[in-house]
This record gives sequence, structure tokens and C-alpha cells, in this order.
Amino acid sequence: MTNRQQILAHRPVGMPTKDTWTLTETEVPELKDGEVLIRNQYVSLDPAMRGWMNDARSYIPPVQLGEVMRAGTVGEVIKANNHPTFKVGDVLSGWGGVQEYSITDGTNYYQVDTRLAPMPTYIGTLGMPGMTAYFGILEVGKIKEGDVVVVSGAAGAVGSIVGQIAKIKGCHVVGIAGGPDKCKYVVEELGFDACIDYKNESVAAGLKTHCPKGMDVYFDNVGGEILDHCLARLKMNARIVICGAISQYNNRENVQGPKNYLSLLVNRATMQGMVVFDYAPKYGEAALQMGQWMAAGKLKSREDIYEGIENFYETFTRLFTGEKKGKLVLKLV
Amino acid sequence: MTNRQQILAHRPVGMPTKDTWTLTETEVPELKDGEVLIRNQYVSLDPAMRGWMNDARSYIPPVQLGEVMRAGTVGEVIKANNHPTFKVGDVLSGWGGVQEYSITDGTNYYQVDTRLAPMPTYIGTLGMPGMTAYFGILEVGKIKEGDVVVVSGAAGAVGSIVGQIAKIKGCHVVGIAGGPDKCKYVVEELGFDACIDYKNESVAAGLKTHCPKGMDVYFDNVGGEILDHCLARLKMNARIVICGAISQYNNRENVQGPKNYLSLLVNRATMQGMVVFDYAPKYGEAALQMGQWMAAGKLKSREDIYEGIENFYETFTRLFTGEKKGKLVLKLV
Repeated sequence: MTNRQQILAHRPVGMPTKDTWTLTETEVPELKDGEVLIRNQYVSLDPAMRGWMNDARSYIPPVQLGEVMRAGTVGEVIKANNHPTFKVGDVLSGWGGVQEYSITDGTNYYQVDTRLAPMPTYIGTLGMPGMTAYFGILEVGKIKEGDVVVVSGAAGAVGSIVGQIAKIKGCHVVGIAGGPDKCKYVVEELGFDACIDYKNESVAAGLKTHCPKGMDVYFDNVGGEILDHCLARLKMNARIVICGAISQYNNRENVQGPKNYLSLLVNRATMQGMVVFDYAPKYGEAALQMGQWMAAGKLKSREDIYEGIENFYETFTRLFTGEKKGKLVLKLV
Repeated sequence: MTNRQQILAHRPVGMPTKDTWTLTETEVPELKDGEVLIRNQYVSLDPAMRGWMNDARSYIPPVQLGEVMRAGTVGEVIKANNHPTFKVGDVLSGWGGVQEYSITDGTNYYQVDTRLAPMPTYIGTLGMPGMTAYFGILEVGKIKEGDVVVVSGAAGAVGSIVGQIAKIKGCHVVGIAGGPDKCKYVVEELGFDACIDYKNESVAAGLKTHCPKGMDVYFDNVGGEILDHCLARLKMNARIVICGAISQYNNRENVQGPKNYLSLLVNRATMQGMVVFDYAPKYGEAALQMGQWMAAGKLKSREDIYEGIENFYETFTRLFTGEKKGKLVLKLV
């Protein structure tokens, strides 16, 4: 039985290129006692993966050269060798990586119920991006009814959920996204109050129009200029959630620091970083709540699915070119 | 009776120059009912004054051209016209400005007791800088016993108090200051555990030596490169108190944004701005506590006093050249 894997071959400087990974074939080994074999059906593609490729101390060790590219997955158990919990036919979500088959003793995998939501949703709204949105906006952003909330990457896997949760909680929500299609989607489908098209409009002017008195919370997925524009329009005691900085991940030079950071002083504001893993003990609670919102039609989830492990590189780059809508997923089977 | 005043004549671009202010003479007017006349004896010189000269929205309105330069003062009431509280001989601290005499109805002035501490202390450790240090390190920095605390501007009016309070609370305290004299003072006189001389040493290397496991709290008075070095050495859940950014106040270009701000994400850390005025209702409580520490010899206060209203410009620039130790004060009488 052959397993195709995307192996990290070079550490990219700037944007990854086609030779950053090598597609290799290897035999699937025999299962040891207590292991299961999973056929990975969907692979989660996330901006954070770019950070994991750098040889730098971070919140998670870097992927090593020669290793399978780390990624979240969902797939079905097709073989089990005396596993105490999982059996053939179970659908598991976990860190399968960009490969067709994974072998695991079950650590960091959990079973999902495909009667409640389709498989890709478990690596989207009910997976890491959804959890990031949920805990980021509620526990770090500490939103309350009536707050003015701005979110960048508003059409993306995290941002789209952040804004919808803020709407559910009674906030005035302004998105920032790239292009008229995404902005239309954010307002008309997801119910945001407004969306600024940063590719075709002035973000500063858009914020002035849609947050005339400033913002209480800014949920930052992008960094760079947009973070600076938001810093310039904080209300007193505002909170900035630092979730990511996709505009900076492929920099060849230094990250661009927010030159307006002294607005934190003027407005007694807080900028706080988060990593979703810290909330793992409460994932179940969040999944239950978001599942209920989805069932009630209050929370919409959208995946943008591309096929074929051989198309990993081309699909991955859509994260940075912005050519995708909602959660980016690679379908393997 | 003639009043000499330092009037804001030009808005500086970059460092103020001698013609930024004009020394003028004017007659002291008659007191209206309910007013007092104060002879200002000591003027507080603070880095924040540089910000008040910019025509920009901030936490306090800018000083207008033609107005007396705003400054904290302490002085004696020499005339009173039916004032309900204050009488001749009372010593008051308040916003007298850079002038020899002020007239006020008492708003934002409070009486001080020169038997407990000398006048200059009331614009230093028991005044705005001391209050900034006290509330900044305790309420924003949220220090607890055993924390590793780093403070820049460690020999200055705010930093010297921050570090001493952190020592009183059982923290390991590392200062950053400019020059061997200041560093010696910080360690030998103030009792910090270490002090890094940023003018003669690598700050990165110093932090590695003195905070081998990183820092829990960074109290930032300076911004710029030093903020970036500290961001690079945060412990998990670290707190950065943004109190000021003296390295950036005279910039002709943009403020330098902290390029290492994504360390906030990696370390789930918080960067929070503060303005001391928010704590005004609790100044009394802080003054009492700090007065007790001073009486017990646990908290040392040092003023660097220069004389003459005509020397205001030369004295003020010492804030930015660093040629002073402790709280910078201009003595008028």
C-alpha cells in the first residue's frame, strides 16, 4: 500500500515555491499494537503553516526538513490494531499532515460525527479556525453588546466566524477583505454591517465611514498597514486581538512593526496575542455552541475545496494570493 | 508685579530649539473673587511635555501657540481673594505652567505638606512620575512575587520608582539605562538586581545574561530598538506596560513600530497603554503608601534640580540627551 506525502524539502525565503516540497511515495508500514491507520480525506490549509516552516522558536516546533508537512486532517480509520478507543469506520480529526495515510496511537486525534456536520467542517468552523475565532473574539476580545468590532481577513476561515459571532452577540461589525466579491459575500451572506475592500478602497476612509466613533475591538489576521489604520481609530479601552499577520508571513525582510502602536497609550488600549491551543480543554463547549448556531442558521460555514495531493503547492498559495473564499481545504480522496 | 513666562512660539519638528519658546514678561493681574496667586517655586520637566506640543489628537489637548508652556508645578500661595480652601502660605501642587506666578481658582491643585517631604518630591515621587510608576507597575504590569521585571529609563523619574516598587514586591528587577554612572546608581543606590548600559553594551546580550528565561513584565519608557529587544525575550503571558516612548518623541519621520510585536502572539502576551490621569481618584492611597516606603528607607527619591526660568530650554533638552539623574526639576525661586 503506497502513501503519497508532501515532504518539506527546503525552507522558503519569502513565498514558498514549487520545490519547497517534494511529493514522495513510501510504503505504509505495519501497525504496531494500539495503532490505527487513517485514510486522510481532507487536509486543512492554514496561513499558520507558513510560520511552521521557519527555523525559529515559536509556539510550536518548526517542521523539519525531510518531514511530512504538518497539517490538520480529517479521515476514516481503515485499519486498527487493538486500539482501546478507535475502530475501523471511525472518522477522526487530528494532525495527519499532508499525506494520504497516517498512522497514530490516537494522541491529539478526536472522533467526529459526520451526521452532524460534513467532514470538511471539522477542519473549518468546528476545527482549529472556528476555535480560534470563538475564543479569540470572546475571551481575548471580550466583546459585549453594542461594541464596534472590526475584523480583517473577513471572508477567511477565521474572520468570517469572528464577525458572525460578534453579530450574534449584538455588535456592530465591519469586515475588511480583498475584492468586491468577498465584500459582497461578507455583507450579504454573513450579515456583517459593512465590509471595506482593501484592494480597491482606502481603508482609512472606510473605517472613518463605518466606525465614525472608532472601534472597541479589532481582530487582526493580517498585520501590516491595516493594523496601523485600525490602531489610528481605537476607542478608549479598546482591545486588539493579535491572531495572525498574513501580510507579513512571506516577508524577506523584517516584519513591519505597527508604527501607530502609541495609540495604545493614548487610548489605554490593549494588544494581546493568542494561540488557539491554549483553549483545548474547552473545544468541546465551543463546538457544541457553534454547532447549535449552525443548526439555527445563525452561523454559516463555507469551505473552498480543491482536489489532489499533487496540487498541494498551487492550492496552498491561494492562502496568500487571496484566491479563495472561506476555509481552504485540500481533498485527497 | 511682573510675571516671566515661557510661551510656546513654534511647534517643533524634531527636537525643540531655542526659539520654540519665547520668554516674555507680563503684569500679574488682579485676583478675582475666589482666586489665589501662587509663586511657582519648582517646575516639573517631563518627557510627556514634548507630546503636548504636537498639534495632534492625544490624551490631552495640545498646548496652543501663544500659550504658557504646560507643566506641573509646586509653589506657595502669596495672595488669596476669598478662596474657600486655600490661604496665604499654603503650598500647592498643580498645573502652574512654566511661569513665575499662576492664578487659579484651585481646580486641579492640591495642598502638599512640606514637613513630610520637600517641595520637589511633590512633582517627583509623590507627583505625576511617582503615580505613573505606582499604578503602571502594579495595576497594568500586575507584578507578583518572583516575577522578572525589566524597566527602561531605569535612572529616570518613573523608571527608578518602578524598579524599586518591583523590588519591594519581591521581583527580580533589571534596569536599562544610558551610561555607567546611571547603571551604577540604579544597582548600588536603588537596589536593582542588574542594569544594562544601552549606550555601551548590547541590550540583547544583557537581557540574555540577566533574564536567561525571559521576562514577565517589561515597563517601557523608551520605545524603539529597546522595545524590540524586550519583545524578543518575553515569557509566556508576559505583560508590556506602554508608558512612553522617549526615543521616538523627537522623530521627524514616523514612529518606529515594534517589528517583534508577533512575539505577543507566540507568548500570549499583552501590550497595554496607560495614562496616569485615569488613576486620579486613587492618588491619595498611592502617596500614602509611597510616603511610608520612603520613611522606611525602602524607596529613594532623587531630583536633579537646575535653576532659572531663563534656562528652561537648556534644562528641558536634558530629558532627551539623558544628561540628568532622577527627576528633572527647574527651580524658579
